[in-house]
Amino acid sequence: MDSALQSHIRANAGEAQALLERLCRQPSIAAQGVGIDAMASLTEDMLREAGFTTRRLLADGAPPAIFAEQKGRSPYTLLLYNHYDVQPAEPLELWHSAAFEPTVRDGKLFARGSSDNKGEIAARLAALRALRATYGELPITIRWIIEGEEEIGSPHFAAIAEPYAELLKADGCLWEGSSFTVDGRPELILGTKGLLYVQLDISCLGGDAHSGNAPMLPSAAWRLVQALATLRTPNGTIQLPGFYNAVRAPTEAQLAALADQPNDEAELRAAFGVEQFADGLTGLALRQRQAFSPTCNIAGLVSGYTGEGSKTVLPAKAMAKIDFRLVPDQDPDAILAALRQHLDAHGYTDISITTFGACGAVVTPIDEPFVQRMAAIAQGYNGKPPAITPIIGGTLPLLDALRRYVGVPGLCAPGNPTYWANGMHAPNEHIRLADLDEAVRFNCHMFQTLGV
Amino acid sequence: MDSALQSHIRANAGEAQALLERLCRQPSIAAQGVGIDAMASLTEDMLREAGFTTRRLLADGAPPAIFAEQKGRSPYTLLLYNHYDVQPAEPLELWHSAAFEPTVRDGKLFARGSSDNKGEIAARLAALRALRATYGELPITIRWIIEGEEEIGSPHFAAIAEPYAELLKADGCLWEGSSFTVDGRPELILGTKGLLYVQLDISCLGGDAHSGNAPMLPSAAWRLVQALATLRTPNGTIQLPGFYNAVRAPTEAQLAALADQPNDEAELRAAFGVEQFADGLTGLALRQRQAFSPTCNIAGLVSGYTGEGSKTVLPAKAMAKIDFRLVPDQDPDAILAALRQHLDAHGYTDISITTFGACGAVVTPIDEPFVQRMAAIAQGYNGKPPAITPIIGGTLPLLDALRRYVGVPGLCAPGNPTYWANGMHAPNEHIRLADLDEAVRFNCHMFQTLGV
Repeated sequence: MDSALQSHIRANAGEAQALLERLCRQPSIAAQGVGIDAMASLTEDMLREAGFTTRRLLADGAPPAIFAEQKGRSPYTLLLYNHYDVQPAEPLELWHSAAFEPTVRDGKLFARGSSDNKGEIAARLAALRALRATYGELPITIRWIIEGEEEIGSPHFAAIAEPYAELLKADGCLWEGSSFTVDGRPELILGTKGLLYVQLDISCLGGDAHSGNAPMLPSAAWRLVQALATLRTPNGTIQLPGFYNAVRAPTEAQLAALADQPNDEAELRAAFGVEQFADGLTGLALRQRQAFSPTCNIAGLVSGYTGEGSKTVLPAKAMAKIDFRLVPDQDPDAILAALRQHLDAHGYTDISITTFGACGAVVTPIDEPFVQRMAAIAQGYNGKPPAITPIIGGTLPLLDALRRYVGVPGLCAPGNPTYWANGMHAPNEHIRLADLDEAVRFNCHMFQTLGV
Repeated sequence: MDSALQSHIRANAGEAQALLERLCRQPSIAAQGVGIDAMASLTEDMLREAGFTTRRLLADGAPPAIFAEQKGRSPYTLLLYNHYDVQPAEPLELWHSAAFEPTVRDGKLFARGSSDNKGEIAARLAALRALRATYGELPITIRWIIEGEEEIGSPHFAAIAEPYAELLKADGCLWEGSSFTVDGRPELILGTKGLLYVQLDISCLGGDAHSGNAPMLPSAAWRLVQALATLRTPNGTIQLPGFYNAVRAPTEAQLAALADQPNDEAELRAAFGVEQFADGLTGLALRQRQAFSPTCNIAGLVSGYTGEGSKTVLPAKAMAKIDFRLVPDQDPDAILAALRQHLDAHGYTDISITTFGACGAVVTPIDEPFVQRMAAIAQGYNGKPPAITPIIGGTLPLLDALRRYVGVPGLCAPGNPTYWANGMHAPNEHIRLADLDEAVRFNCHMFQTLGV
């Protein structure tokens, strides 16, 4: 990074934080439809202020995806992906400061979305603003799509990507980004898990009944508990018919990448508040489990009286929310069919399934040229070899559509100031401000180097 | 019933309803500590207005139990038991009129507590007011205790009954009452199930986590679901060690009483909104199951995100509320110990148990003289032989203490204007006003006949 750019960044210290606070102050909860329109407008405003031309990409029933473009000195074209929506903030009572009032404590900025992923929007924006201010233009052409439904599974992204595919063509795509490992190595993430998110509902009575009638009445709560217990063994093996049939074995290169990763187990244990990981796993076995195991997670469960004290009620209804995280080449539609088949086969035809999201895993191979170029750029940043994560536990449901309609090879590079244990999807989400500053510097280095 | 009394009742039609509305307008939710003090004062006021002397019976940490006494012409002394507290009104959104604004629709009065059991307080009070107004005094001596914690398991009733046992001595006791069968026979209820109400809690993480971490983290929701599934087979058999050991077989007289009961299955199915009862049971088999089977009911269950749409979270905590209904001679303390032992034996030492109530079943034998006298009085009311229920599914946790410290034989007689399917413990609790009037008449007949 040359001295002119460094001077500009020093002179504008705090710009990324100010951008981030502006983004976080606007609620944008896709699941609850809160603040989405206002957030789309704010996103557009902030992109225009940074020199972009913007355009709203529309699909029936979807909030607008914001598309922005700015030509650069080099013909090299990079597509950036982000989302302006966030997860719900509940349970609100567990937040130490209000979810949509950005608050700094101990060098960390707390707010819903600060990490996932308004922090990355702010870091990318601050870097691009610095480059433009210093040199009068960007080093490369940037195309940028920021959608508003990622946290509910990007249900309309395919309907946007298909008609607007030409706008999104590029030499490479940076997805929602990665960060640095505990020992300062830039992390490249090459893939995400697939997701099938379903809600199970059962109703056995016309209304809640006095629990003294329990000997003679069916129980929705018991039926749901017993149905759930058939889905998964206590050791985590998922019991749906054919669930593991399509699971692809990891490649040698992927296993080698995992083995080369730094050991951050102590930090992870502290961050999650656990004494040990599931089944006492550690080392490479833990990493392999995390990378290549599909899961069936209970994200929500409710029936009957959940307040203080006692209420002797036999609940009429029960509900569970379940997310399956899928690995290559599991097909979410096939898993959904297997779930229905499994419930029916176990006598639970009275449990209904509502689908809230379904997409496959997407993994870019390690030998893809864009991956190799980004690895070299990352190593050039601080001299440390990048840590390569073949696939993460999270899901970017849009990647399937991007690959299908646009075809640009993608990955996550460390332009995202997140840190593991940052309360993503949970109360007290935050980022460390030092990580935000580092992300701005990395983004400047990366955009410049891609233009050379 | 003589003509003077009949005239008084006719001239004061609506008095019982007015008394009931006054009682229901005052919230008194023991589980939430709402309105209890005001309800105790209102109860005292209304008893004094009916000619009773009153006294507050106190125990540390308990709301006052109201004791009332009024001497009568005959030395025969009857103890009445009621409670002025009610169940929580949640879920509020399912009520068609506000829970604490008594509202009449279709000849029914809707309000929380209208049936359980302010309706009975109103019917007893109206009958006693009518007798006193007509004859200048009561036919018998009435002692009446009205406590304020029945709906949370009467945790302090023993601490009240023990020191005040002399006040509560009587020739017989009428518990919370019964009603009439569908074919108009007075129903006598001779016993109640025991209750063990527990809350199970488990916490596996420092906080909720992103569900992408599911491969490597323990899940509180899964552990609770799998622990619950070990408690009970899908067909309802409870798996705690020794759970059924102390269960006493029904007597010949009890089985004969069950066989003599009218068949109200069609009405019950309609009321509960079910096409058939558990396991397709019907007839005597259904009645035996309802009377003599202990149960393990999930009254509440919650973990993670339970709002609209999707949230991909791995919940840190999970909670279940369970009530066990017990039969003679199951001991709630032994069942609690068996629950702990069962959970530990299945590896769930990390699930904590909080007890919200524990009491044994209480059953008065059919050949007890007070039972035989009440059966004769009931038959004298409308010429129909009483239907005798040896034990109901509900629980009156104070009965154990009453029997232990006071020793008075008790039962439920049809002075309670309830009707099955009246939304007890559920939204839209109500009574039929015609049942309320009949309860006043039955109470007048009963109090008069006991004095002869």
